[in-house]
Parts: sequence; C-alpha cells; structure tokens
Amino acid sequence: MGCVGICGSDVHYLVNGRIGDFIVKAPMIIGHEASGIVKKVGKNVKNLNIGDRVAIEPGVPCRMCEFCKGGRYNLCPDVVFCATPPVHGNLSRYYVHAADFCYKLPDHVSLEEGALLEPLSVGVHACRRGGVGLGSTVLITGAGPIGLVTLITAKAMGAEKILISDLMDHRLGVAKDLGANFVMLSKPGEDEKETVQRVHSILGGAPDITIECSGAEPSIRLAILATKSGGVVMMVGMGAPEVKIPLVNALAREVDIRGLFRYANDYQIALSMVASGAANVKKLVTHNFRIEDVVEAFEVAKTGKGNPIKVMIHPLKGKKL
Amino acid sequence: MGCVGICGSDVHYLVNGRIGDFIVKAPMIIGHEASGIVKKVGKNVKNLNIGDRVAIEPGVPCRMCEFCKGGRYNLCPDVVFCATPPVHGNLSRYYVHAADFCYKLPDHVSLEEGALLEPLSVGVHACRRGGVGLGSTVLITGAGPIGLVTLITAKAMGAEKILISDLMDHRLGVAKDLGANFVMLSKPGEDEKETVQRVHSILGGAPDITIECSGAEPSIRLAILATKSGGVVMMVGMGAPEVKIPLVNALAREVDIRGLFRYANDYQIALSMVASGAANVKKLVTHNFRIEDVVEAFEVAKTGKGNPIKVMIHPLKGKKL
Amino acid sequence: MGCVGICGSDVHYLVNGRIGDFIVKAPMIIGHEASGIVKKVGKNVKNLNIGDRVAIEPGVPCRMCEFCKGGRYNLCPDVVFCATPPVHGNLSRYYVHAADFCYKLPDHVSLEEGALLEPLSVGVHACRRGGVGLGSTVLITGAGPIGLVTLITAKAMGAEKILISDLMDHRLGVAKDLGANFVMLSKPGEDEKETVQRVHSILGGAPDITIECSGAEPSIRLAILATKSGGVVMMVGMGAPEVKIPLVNALAREVDIRGLFRYANDYQIALSMVASGAANVKKLVTHNFRIEDVVEAFEVAKTGKGNPIKVMIHPLKGKKL
Amino acid sequence: MGCVGICGSDVHYLVNGRIGDFIVKAPMIIGHEASGIVKKVGKNVKNLNIGDRVAIEPGVPCRMCEFCKGGRYNLCPDVVFCATPPVHGNLSRYYVHAADFCYKLPDHVSLEEGALLEPLSVGVHACRRGGVGLGSTVLITGAGPIGLVTLITAKAMGAEKILISDLMDHRLGVAKDLGANFVMLSKPGEDEKETVQRVHSILGGAPDITIECSGAEPSIRLAILATKSGGVVMMVGMGAPEVKIPLVNALAREVDIRGLFRYANDYQIALSMVASGAANVKKLVTHNFRIEDVVEAFEVAKTGKGNPIKVMIHPLKGKKL
Repeated sequence: MGCVGICGSDVHYLVNGRIGDFIVKAPMIIGHEASGIVKKVGKNVKNLNIGDRVAIEPGVPCRMCEFCKGGRYNLCPDVVFCATPPVHGNLSRYYVHAADFCYKLPDHVSLEEGALLEPLSVGVHACRRGGVGLGSTVLITGAGPIGLVTLITAKAMGAEKILISDLMDHRLGVAKDLGANFVMLSKPGEDEKETVQRVHSILGGAPDITIECSGAEPSIRLAILATKSGGVVMMVGMGAPEVKIPLVNALAREVDIRGLFRYANDYQIALSMVASGAANVKKLVTHNFRIEDVVEAFEVAKTGKGNPIKVMIHPLKGKKL
Repeated sequence: MGCVGICGSDVHYLVNGRIGDFIVKAPMIIGHEASGIVKKVGKNVKNLNIGDRVAIEPGVPCRMCEFCKGGRYNLCPDVVFCATPPVHGNLSRYYVHAADFCYKLPDHVSLEEGALLEPLSVGVHACRRGGVGLGSTVLITGAGPIGLVTLITAKAMGAEKILISDLMDHRLGVAKDLGANFVMLSKPGEDEKETVQRVHSILGGAPDITIECSGAEPSIRLAILATKSGGVVMMVGMGAPEVKIPLVNALAREVDIRGLFRYANDYQIALSMVASGAANVKKLVTHNFRIEDVVEAFEVAKTGKGNPIKVMIHPLKGKKL
Repeated sequence: MGCVGICGSDVHYLVNGRIGDFIVKAPMIIGHEASGIVKKVGKNVKNLNIGDRVAIEPGVPCRMCEFCKGGRYNLCPDVVFCATPPVHGNLSRYYVHAADFCYKLPDHVSLEEGALLEPLSVGVHACRRGGVGLGSTVLITGAGPIGLVTLITAKAMGAEKILISDLMDHRLGVAKDLGANFVMLSKPGEDEKETVQRVHSILGGAPDITIECSGAEPSIRLAILATKSGGVVMMVGMGAPEVKIPLVNALAREVDIRGLFRYANDYQIALSMVASGAANVKKLVTHNFRIEDVVEAFEVAKTGKGNPIKVMIHPLKGKKL
Repeated sequence: MGCVGICGSDVHYLVNGRIGDFIVKAPMIIGHEASGIVKKVGKNVKNLNIGDRVAIEPGVPCRMCEFCKGGRYNLCPDVVFCATPPVHGNLSRYYVHAADFCYKLPDHVSLEEGALLEPLSVGVHACRRGGVGLGSTVLITGAGPIGLVTLITAKAMGAEKILISDLMDHRLGVAKDLGANFVMLSKPGEDEKETVQRVHSILGGAPDITIECSGAEPSIRLAILATKSGGVVMMVGMGAPEVKIPLVNALAREVDIRGLFRYANDYQIALSMVASGAANVKKLVTHNFRIEDVVEAFEVAKTGKGNPIKVMIHPLKGKKL
C-alpha cells in the first residue's frame, strides 16, 4: 500500500463502533481511501503488471444483480466495501483487491493523489447526479473534504459561479484557494430567510444546484429554500436520520432532492481530472504520517487539532516523512 | 363553457380564502378544470374555428422567461392561471383564453372528458417526471382524483404492477375498477415498518416508483421508506408546509424525491389517452350539476356527502341534467 | 432445453457462413432464442432451483469492462453470445448457462413464450432507446418478427398511433391483428416524396419516432425523411454496410439516428409484458417442429414457404407435436 | 449596432443566392452575429434600459408551437431569423429586435465578444447535445470558426483530451493556441482505416464523442468509424445533401448520430463562458472592418485571403479602426 487517507467514517467507526446499521462486532482494519503498488497479479489479469502504481476503488460489487447490470453498482446490496463492517479496510502494508477496480496511475500522478481519487469520486458523483454543467450557478454548503472536492469538480465542469459556506473560517480560506468564486461564513442560529437572501444576493439570483455537504439540518433547509425553481438539491452530507424540511416549498417549485451513495463509474473521471491538472487535490492534504504513527494521525483527525482537512498515512514511507 | 370540474383547491379557496401565499383579497370566480365551445376567435388564430369543442389548459405563461423558453413553463413566475388569486377562474358561461392553450377535441371525445384533461394532465406530469415505464412497479398513496388519474396514466404507460392505498374503502373500489392490480386500506396509526413490509409483500418487492398523492405525513414517510434503492418518490399531494422525513434513508439509497407543480406539455398527451380509449376518465365523475346549482355542487365537494370523486358542473346544460 | 426459435441470423450463418466479420470457421451449433428447464445448478446459485422453467438471455458479458459497469453490457467486446462464432448456440437438448442470465418463468408463462422473450427484448430495447412513450406517434418500417415485437412493445408503452409498413400483405395482416392502428403496403420503386406524404397523411402528421426494422435502403431513407423535427429514427434492421442517406435533412431538423445492438437490461421487462398479458407474443409463432425435424424447420425459415413469421423448435417434445 | 461578424452562410447567400430551400428572391440585408447598444425600448420591456450593451440572439420563434413550448424553439417552423430569406439581417446601423432575445453584457465583456456569442452558442449547443462532460475524449473534425468554438466549449466542460483535425495547417495553429490537446493535419485521399488508426493512436483509444464541423464526406465517415461504441457523433457541418455512410458500423455499435440546428437556451451559457474568462473568443477575430468597408470585408471572407478565421464589422466605429 502506498497512501491511505483518513475519512470521517473511519474516525466514526473508531469512536462510535457503528454508523447506522453497520456495526463493528469484531476487530476491523479501517481505511478505504487508498493507492498502492502492484506486487502480484492473478493469472487472468490483463490490465495490470507488477510494479504498476494504482488507485484502489474500495468497493467490489456482486456483478450480477440488477444494480450491477444497470450501471449503478454502488447500490449493489452485496458489495464488499473496504472498512464497512464486517469487511476489513486497507490501512495496511499489503492488501488484495479485484484488478478491474484498480486504476493505473500515469507517471506524473503521485500515490498521494491516487488515494485522493476516493473522496474526489464522491465529488464527481455528486456533480454528475446534480447536473452541474457549463454556466451553472452552484451553492455548496459545507467546506470539509467532501465540500472541497465537490467545489473542485464543479469548477472543472464549467460552473460559472460557486458559493461555498461553512462555519469555520479556515476552511473557507482553502475553498478560496481552490477557486471558489464566493465564500460565506455561516453563523449558528441565524435567520433562515435572511440566509436565503444573502445567498441570492451574493450569487445575483438563486443557485441552479445546491450540493449539501454538511449533514446539518439548517444547511439542509437552506439548500431547499435557496435553490432555483426547477433546480436540484444534492444531499451528500449525512447527519441525523430524521430531519424536518420545508417539503412543500421544494415540491411546488419542482426542486428535486437527490441523494448520493458513494460513486459508480466515477473513478476514471476523477483520475482524468487529476492527470490533466484540472483537479489540484494535493492542496487538501494538510497532515502526513507514517503507518507507525497511525495513532497520532487519528488523534489529529479526531480532535481537529491543527485544522486538518485531509490526514494522509504513508505505509510505504520510512521513519522520516 | 361546456363543463367545469370542481377541484380541491377551489373548495379550499372557498372555505379558507387562501392556499399558502395565494390569498383571495377580492371576489374571485373559481374553476380551472374546463372545456367549452369556441364562440369567437382572434384574427391571428389559426388552430381554432368557431364551433370547435375544446379543452382549456388553464395557465398561460409569459412565453419569455427562461422557464418558458426551456420547456418548463409551469414554473413561469408570471403565469396567469385560472382561479389562482387574483386571476378569475372559468366557472362561468363565457370566458376568454389564449387559443394555443385550447385543445380541439375529436368528435368522439365529450366536453366532460375535455374538462377532465386537467386532472389527468397532473397524472401525466407525475408519471413522466417519476419515470414510470414499461414493466415498472408502482406504489400510489392516496386514491382521490389525483391518485386515480395517476393510476390511469401509469397503467397506460405499461406499468406492470400498481398498488394503490387509501384510508377510504370506496375509493379503493374505484381504483380496482380503473385497473389497479392491488389495493391496500391504510389504517391510521399503524406501524411504519409493518406497512413497508406489507407493501413489499404485496408487490413481491419494493416499488420502483412511488407517487404520493395524499399530502399526509405518514404517506410521505411510507413513500420514502418503501421505494426501491435507486428509485423515485414523486411528491404530488400537498399537505403541511413542514414535514419530518427519514432523509438519510432516501439519500443513502439514492431514492430521488421529486415534486410536481401542475403540468407542462402534458395536455396533448392526456388528450391522446382519452381519444384512444387508454384513459377511461369518465368513471371519475360521480356527481353532475347545472351551473344554477353550483352552491349544491360545492356542498357535495366540501362535505364529501355521497362519496364524491369528481363533481362536474355543466354551464351548457339546461335545467334538467 | 424447452423451446428454441429460429432467427434470421441463424439462417444467415447456415446459408452464408458469416455475418459481417463473424465467420463460421468450425462446425457450430446455432440457436439463441431459447428457454429450458433447470436440470442442475452450481453451488453458488441462489436465484434458481432444479425444475425451474427459465428464459435464457443468450449473451454473457465480461462483467468487468466499462460497458458492463456502465449498464450497457450489450456493447461488451468480450461478450460470449450463443451462436455467434466461435461460440456454440443452444439448439440442443442440454446447455450450460450463467444462472443470472436465466429468468424464472411464472407458472402461467409457457416455455414457448420464454423463448420469444429474446426477440421481444429487441423490441423493448428499440422502443426504450427510441424514447417511445405515452401519446407517441410511431412509424415502424418492416413487419417481420422484429417489426412485430416492436409494434407490440410500442403499444404496451402507450403509443397513441402506430403505422407499420411492409412489402408483404400477409405480414400486415398479422400486424393488424397485433394492434397496429394503421398499415401501409410498400411498393418497390415508389416515389420517395409521395411515400413521405402518404405516411404524414395516414398519421395526421409526422411520426415522433420511426423504428426501421427492414434494413432496406428505401426504408432507411423514408425513416429519416418522414420523422418529425426533433424526433428519433431507430435503425434496427441491418442491411447493406454502406447506404446513401439524406443526412442534411436529418441534421438540420435535429432528427437523431440511433442504432441498436441486441439488448441490455431488457429481458425482465419483456418477461413482465408477457406475464401481465400486455404482449401476446404467441401469435408470432406460425410453425412448430420437433428437434428431430430441424432440417425441415430451417427449410421453412429459409424459403419462407407457408409465410412463416416465427419458426419454433421444441427439443422437449416427443415425436408428435 | 455594435459589431456584426460575417458567417459562412452570409457569404453563401451573397455568392449563390440560396442555401438549400432558402432562396434570396429580393434584396436582403445580411448579418446575424451581432451586438449593439440599446437606443429605444418598448413600453413593456423590463430587462433592458437605454444605453445597455447587448448581444442579440438572431432568431425569434413563434412562442406558441409545440417546439417553443417544449424547450426546443430552434425547431420552430415559424421562427423569424436574421438573414434567412426573406427576413433581413442586422448588418446595419440600427435594428429592431425582441427584448428577451437581447442579452445584457457585463461591463467587462466587449461588443465584439457579444457578437461572437452567436457562433459560440453553436459550439455550446453541439457540446450539450453531444453529451460532452468531465473526462470526455473528443474528436473535432474541422477547425473553422465552428470547430474552434466547439473546441473552446468542450474544454470549458472539462473534456480531458481533445483532438482537432483540419486540412489547413494555420487553422490547427489557432486550435493549439486555444487549447487543443492534439491536432491532426488531414490529407485528402488518405486511407480511411489508417486515419481511424491514427485517431485512436493519438488519443490512446476511441473518442467518446466526435463533433463533425466540416460537412465533408470523408470527415463524416471518419466521425462514425472512429467513435467509441456507445458514443455520439454530432453532425454540425452541413455539406452535400446526400452522403454515403457506413451505417451498419454505427448501428451495431450503438453510436448515435445527432444533428444540430442553430441553438436554443444556449446564449446565456455562452455569455457566462465569456464573462468568466472560460472562453477566449477574441482570438477568433483575425480581421476587422468599418461598415463602410463591408465590400472589402466580404472579399476577405469569400476568398480566404490572409487566412481569416472570423471577419468582424464594426458599424459603430469611425473611419479608422
């Protein structure tokens, strides 16, 4: 294994032992944002050779159900997905994976970038399902790693104006650096209608598409209320299982509410973005650790000390980083 | 005017004087489900002649905004729509309308059926936006007039299995008569998970699409929970402005939630369904009144006495019906 | 094996030894429109049991390429397809197939109907890719088996008006019987513009969608010229590799030209149509033979003696049919 | 009027007096790629003020037919389009136009760029209809003005690799300058299969989408043969009314052939591209003339002397440019 990023879900499993109905019942290796170098290949593998540097798409579906055959393999009920219990993740030195879910990296793409294709694929899936396109006006709520990869993707698709909001100033700074046209500091408890007005006034109108990446109820509500009639709200952030929303507002304006589960057929696109230079994902990595220091790495990810965006672990690297 | 059906919104304006932000501030004629006979035509009108029997699509949009140009004129903010305050409706003897929103009826289609194209167009819009197609499994919650026209439309589109639910038995009888494969009597207060199980067990699996036509929170929740991963919930019924929904359940299974506002480019399709015999909408009309008896007609619509589905008023008819 | 229909391609391989670049270089069993009864199942098979009656989708794709993962497995370059050289077909008494490409038939669907799901799936694929829907006006050129299953499917999808054309009167009779609204006897050498006029006059306007099922150049040209601006021409019939077409006419009216290769994710829909009674495919079978009489069966298919539509072989049946 | 670009069709009308069925029967002003400054506004106009600088979308549709209502107003049979006989164009000092087809330019967008929105909108329409997106591999045949605006648009949409071909070296130089990843000099009479191989070898595989902007039969054939299975060929260039194409090759690989007629709902997107800096259209203008020198301007456009890409006329400019 080359690089493995730490995802919020990894921290969640570590701290809470479960996410919804997925419960860790036996010791489980975590990690699913990964890249590596091919050490061995099966006898039928044609797309890879020993020594190839690859990004690893962490879910291998059954290939036989209606979802797999229909092009939405992310919905396969029998998918085997790294670090979703009871399946082990790949934060380790060696790991076995289906060859066709390994993507060979061009020479100029680093292993670190390879690992970042995982969150980037979420951004790609969100923007594709949301219908972001040339000239779109986009609101992104939440400037954590997923909000930021969504921003990168929306820009690469030709969105004209992107406004991103967050409660934390330092994240908005990163967003600016990654090309956000506008940023907005959210204030807890602010008036809903005023926030909608603020969004419209910054963007010079309502956004065509809002991509909600925080999971927080106020942001979910803002996403619905602020989006243009006939537009789309992509719900990417996962928060409380139950939320109170202004449903009639959405319905009566034909604002579609769409969710997202992981990604399907998005890794190759994410790779092309990085390879062409359209996605400068390296800027997301704020902290790096050796695999020996994984406890420290998770401490940073867990506490948010040092304002981490993405914490990256490097199993291949020696004592010094 | 030939026939004018009474819609729930007409009753609502009569009783409450408002629907959401639309407030009746001055005396307003109601009625928007209408057909008539052409008495006069403007000098530039080419599609109609005096004496033509026509169905009237009740909203005339601005024809100039991005929604009008983009094919979604139902979202035009400047639409002039019958019986939406402050615009008068067409429950009258004479009425002026844009010729291109009048649809000439073939000889074998009655004025009554012409008036019924209005609710039927809602069903067409719902099924098209919901993606109903050949072989679809569909759950419809609510068997009022809109649920029933949705049923008729889903059947005409080739849906394989349709289950329709309601609190009232007599409505389910009409649904059966109109071709529902399965009906389900809802019980207030029943356990949510059990109802989902009941739906899955009746249909032999989860519905691809659920079309929610009741506006009731339990049905809205059922729609989300019961629909197949990757499927669509069409929210057609409008109830309380705010509802509590299991949003994460929808998101994490990529169940899209789509609303509907009236219709656009659907009237011609509705007409073709009636003309070809695919939509037997006449069965929806349970009560008929002369225009002189309009007070009595609204009494029936308001109280539900006699289990009305659709109440129809006939301005053209003489004293006796 | 229960039933195996004879397809034009089977006859083509028998007579010419090749179709395009697919060349029969060694003795090859033909047959790919088939159904059977499960005799044995692999140890991982969950969807089938011994004794189940199944329809067999004849192509098994690689499950790993971008086409397979993207939902268009019919385009998989490594598909293993019955009776496409060098792969044997299934006109035999026993045959091994991937379980997930076998579709269990409900009790009331016959093995004969199961075999007919193969051509029916072509019709389903054609109508779905062509965008046939509620209220569509459709022209189908060619009333052979594929034209007829297309007709059946278009009707089941709610097409309002369907006109089908052919050079042979007896086929048009079958089309009428299957529900064609209009039929048109084509005359070789007739004037192109006049034929377009004839189509428009019969349908009361241009068809939204034309599905070309003959492969003949005059029909291909008619399909383009007759279709409504903004409409779709589905090219299903395969004729000469090169044709001269009025391309500018199509382009300047945004008439899309789409092809079709077999089917993908269509078998289940075809099965639902037969199971619900929407597709009366049995009417297509004009001739039945025991497997011992296969030479005679191909003689009928080859010569067209007795006006065959679909010739069916019954490996399970004894001496007498 | 501020700026008016000369289009190939203007030259065609001047030289041949007709394009297809559009015949110039009376003296006709040409010009349809235009921008201007508002001098007067109608009393109902709300979106414009005197003094506003605007780009002019040159076609005003009927607003009432099914195409207009359905969002495809470019197909409106009653559209009034500048410089399509018998309608006058706008290469003049003053010109009257529907306000809602005038797009206000931000201060930093020049009148020259405003005029260039017209060809750019063709590129936008081509790429949207062709389905160009993030990570797409695109082949563009023809590097004239339309090929170049298509290139600009495909890049702005996030296409990963774009190869553009032309017979003229100097055009490929401009293409390189505008960001083409690869260019290919076409040679008349070269072997078709070899050219396909050349394209695949340059791109490292088949293009997902080919946008044919030359109208030449060899390019049309190349477009079909070179495109990936399941891909799209956009036919933008209009050449001979009849062409011989390898239709079976397209069909059997489900390569869709789509045409394009002008644009619809694309101007605003084109403007956003120019305003955001994503489209550097100014580079297309190689020659500028005062309106007094229009004869000379057309001489350049007609003869190609000085290798013009786009010739621009400036009615507002004084004697000296």
